[in-house]
Amino acid sequence: MRAFKLLIAGMLLLSISTTSDALRAAPADTARVVLVVHGGAGTITRDRMTPEREQQYRAALREALEAGYRVLQEGGTSLDAVVAAIRILEDSPLFNAGRGAVLTSEGTAELDASIMDGRTLQAGAVAGVKTVKNPILLARRVMEASPHVMLIGRGAETFAQEQGLELVPNEYFILPERREQLRRMKERGMGAVPELQEHAYGTVGAVALDRYGNLAAGTSTGGIMGKRFGRVGDSPIIGAGTYADNAACAISATGQGEYFIRAAIAHEIVALMKYAGLTVEQAAAAAIHGTLTRMGGTGGVIALDRNGRAAMVFNTEGMYRGYVDEHGHITIQIYRD
Amino acid sequence: MRAFKLLIAGMLLLSISTTSDALRAAPADTARVVLVVHGGAGTITRDRMTPEREQQYRAALREALEAGYRVLQEGGTSLDAVVAAIRILEDSPLFNAGRGAVLTSEGTAELDASIMDGRTLQAGAVAGVKTVKNPILLARRVMEASPHVMLIGRGAETFAQEQGLELVPNEYFILPERREQLRRMKERGMGAVPELQEHAYGTVGAVALDRYGNLAAGTSTGGIMGKRFGRVGDSPIIGAGTYADNAACAISATGQGEYFIRAAIAHEIVALMKYAGLTVEQAAAAAIHGTLTRMGGTGGVIALDRNGRAAMVFNTEGMYRGYVDEHGHITIQIYRD
Repeated sequence: MRAFKLLIAGMLLLSISTTSDALRAAPADTARVVLVVHGGAGTITRDRMTPEREQQYRAALREALEAGYRVLQEGGTSLDAVVAAIRILEDSPLFNAGRGAVLTSEGTAELDASIMDGRTLQAGAVAGVKTVKNPILLARRVMEASPHVMLIGRGAETFAQEQGLELVPNEYFILPERREQLRRMKERGMGAVPELQEHAYGTVGAVALDRYGNLAAGTSTGGIMGKRFGRVGDSPIIGAGTYADNAACAISATGQGEYFIRAAIAHEIVALMKYAGLTVEQAAAAAIHGTLTRMGGTGGVIALDRNGRAAMVFNTEGMYRGYVDEHGHITIQIYRD
Repeated sequence: MRAFKLLIAGMLLLSISTTSDALRAAPADTARVVLVVHGGAGTITRDRMTPEREQQYRAALREALEAGYRVLQEGGTSLDAVVAAIRILEDSPLFNAGRGAVLTSEGTAELDASIMDGRTLQAGAVAGVKTVKNPILLARRVMEASPHVMLIGRGAETFAQEQGLELVPNEYFILPERREQLRRMKERGMGAVPELQEHAYGTVGAVALDRYGNLAAGTSTGGIMGKRFGRVGDSPIIGAGTYADNAACAISATGQGEYFIRAAIAHEIVALMKYAGLTVEQAAAAAIHGTLTRMGGTGGVIALDRNGRAAMVFNTEGMYRGYVDEHGHITIQIYRD
């Protein structure tokens, strides 16, 4: 037990020393953050990026933030805002979620998503979905219109159909460049370890705080390029890729999902706030720069507490991310600095 | 934050007042517990049980404990012991795991299982499996022979085939009495809420401590009777139904899976030990009699820490459960008293 107290103390120090990665958004006199989004973490560096491509990413993140902010401004809930933002990122071909998803080793798109309500701790999740245009909408239906939390595969799709959600052929999700990536990946050998390849990131997520003081979190992904079909990462796992609890914070994660599951990263951040007394920035930093990094995993999280304090923490070169405050001021960042 | 400190204090008090449900196995002079198993929690009362049926359950739990203990005695790992014990319970028609599983609303058996290594935090999980005789063996293969943590549906079964695991037709799992239960359930109406029906419990699990000081946990289930096909409960969710961390304890849960997912019960117990300084008994009691009960969920957990202190906590009428200490002494319990 002593060792763990020391560990927590170490994490605290670590989190302080790495605040360059945390969002410096909450000096006492600034507006509180109401919505944070991410579009995946990975080896995103300036020298790999063209100005045109960077502009596309910035525009898509901005569009998602504006859509979610509009919902919040009009009195919508944090759940509504999370769904509105993620839908835009799912529809964008730039990210590994919905249209533009990476492909399984079989060349299909298999999508996972989850959502959680910080007020009620209700949650919904879907995995292995191939024909539902917006998996985040299906996750929400599972939460609100089924007695279950998680539905997978054909069962999830049958439910989507019953609920009247928009269905599309699997080809809708597949871009020619994803096919080309898979072909090149197969040529080079798939590799035994699920590495965060250059083109394999792009999971999207959002966390929001509404005027009623309630938090929500959501995440959507195509998983990892070349994954064995049937593989499920952290995105649809409540407690790993997504968690929201008004008593602590809302979290959406992105990265090497296997590590996020094993460390239960999203719930770990919540627990560090509730039981170790850390702030949202400290807890997110402890989970990513402490636990995840020690295990050898890479990725990042966005986190938002009930006071509008936010953190965007990652141990990769970059993470597509942005936030909007209660006055509608939008900030978008991509690289580490 | 103050509210949560109070909450923890309250949970502590609660856990002390409910030690009747906790395993009173660890006065300082007794042997340490090395293996704990459960066979599900629910409305298990003496007046619903025949002496013959009780003897069957006791014999099966004993057989599982003996099998796991033998492994540990021979120098096997806690992972080996967990698998040995769960295999017996999967093969027994008495429990809702492997043979004897409950049926989906479509009349099929869909099995979920997971396993976790407390030393490495490695984990494996499968969901929606229909033809793998022992899902716990497949979960272990996913952990040890794939780069992934979780495989679902046909992808999981293809992997099982590649790994040479024993496959059976879905009918192998289905007992005539389960078909009859489903028929009666459909007659009465399925009910919108996933209640812990009389015949719908029986998830099995095991937690073990080996001579090398390492913990492991595993869980296996058929889910809930009449579930929508594709529904996944907490059993294959790392952090919900199963977790193991040498730094805290090993956990296997059973009950209304949706609540266990939403509260991340297994990881919650680990976090309460690591960050709130609770003992394994206190942490398990806080999670079950505190968090789970407040949310309106029912079920239970078995938990084992690295010192061989165990807890078997539930808020239902009974839980099939038992443990064996380092000298091979076996204790089996069913009812609340």
